[in-house]
Amino acid sequence: MKYYLVLFVVALLSIQIAVAQSRPYNVVFDLTTKDSVSQQSVIRWINLISKNNADAKLEVVMYGQGLDLVTKGKSIVADDVTKLAQNKNVSFAVCDIAMKHQNVDKSQLLPGVTTVPDGIYEIITKQGEGWGYIKVTH
Amino acid sequence: MKYYLVLFVVALLSIQIAVAQSRPYNVVFDLTTKDSVSQQSVIRWINLISKNNADAKLEVVMYGQGLDLVTKGKSIVADDVTKLAQNKNVSFAVCDIAMKHQNVDKSQLLPGVTTVPDGIYEIITKQGEGWGYIKVTH
Amino acid sequence: MKYYLVLFVVALLSIQIAVAQSRPYNVVFDLTTKDSVSQQSVIRWINLISKNNADAKLEVVMYGQGLDLVTKGKSIVADDVTKLAQNKNVSFAVCDIAMKHQNVDKSQLLPGVTTVPDGIYEIITKQGEGWGYIKVTH
Repeated sequence: MKYYLVLFVVALLSIQIAVAQSRPYNVVFDLTTKDSVSQQSVIRWINLISKNNADAKLEVVMYGQGLDLVTKGKSIVADDVTKLAQNKNVSFAVCDIAMKHQNVDKSQLLPGVTTVPDGIYEIITKQGEGWGYIKVTH
Repeated sequence: MKYYLVLFVVALLSIQIAVAQSRPYNVVFDLTTKDSVSQQSVIRWINLISKNNADAKLEVVMYGQGLDLVTKGKSIVADDVTKLAQNKNVSFAVCDIAMKHQNVDKSQLLPGVTTVPDGIYEIITKQGEGWGYIKVTH
Repeated sequence: MKYYLVLFVVALLSIQIAVAQSRPYNVVFDLTTKDSVSQQSVIRWINLISKNNADAKLEVVMYGQGLDLVTKGKSIVADDVTKLAQNKNVSFAVCDIAMKHQNVDKSQLLPGVTTVPDGIYEIITKQGEGWGYIKVTH
């Protein structure tokens, strides 16, 4: 009996500790603009955050006009994207629905860029898992 | 005694299951721009999401310059708004404070459009209830 | 033994009550634009919210091009910022990293404006603490 009680206390405490502990640096960036300042900003932020926080998990979700960031011949930060995409804690995820709507093929994406079935659902799922949310604009 | 213990275990598990289960497709869209691309984008997204996810709950909250989306004579997607507003899982909610500030009367809003006392509080309340949040810009 | 059981019930109930109670009016505003309409909007919203909700906690986090709001000689709402910054429930927090990147010194900030080590981490920390999140654009 005592064993179960201890188990309950541990379970309760673990919930409270999970809530109280310092927040992990997990961020989903929402990019829907082709604006060059926004492209450069999100790359600068990701470079800085991953440099200063080795465990930070960062994902850029692109839909609407945001696809340019990772499209060959359109991205103004192609080298940075290609390099950052090799970092296992950084991902660039393009919305499949937006790709179809805009007739963009996977072969047009920079190396290492991934796709997700639905960009908006990807973002709200991350939010639901406790990731921070940043809309990229300027 | 044993009964209470079982009750506690069930209660604890139910909390964990609630956290772990797949996220419902509930989204509050924050619209503060009169930009035509943003108007068209949010309507396209809502059409697609509600078509692909019958249970998705979607709400567009408008304040600042976002009121044009649902204002007669200003909306460039008036037919879509009127049609979507009939869907019980889709709502277009205009901030009362913004309406007063901009001298917009309820009679100027498209059919089916609703109002909320405070647009920002509406948004953060939805966020607090676990809805996803998407800022509409481009 | 009974004492512990009561304790568990209270703990469980307190978690559920915390989730169910009405959401406090806590908002972190994310400002990355120097746009004048956005500067005026966020100030108007803060004035209204703090007037209508005495307990509302409001914070504007500035990085990217958002620093103009609180920079001497650049802000178009300098008087409002200076006045609002005296309210203990309102804060204007500039990202240290952005200040260094843009060669902005603390002496250039309006009176009462504070700084945070990392603007994005400040925002996602507030989100993690249950604050609402509003991206300021138009």
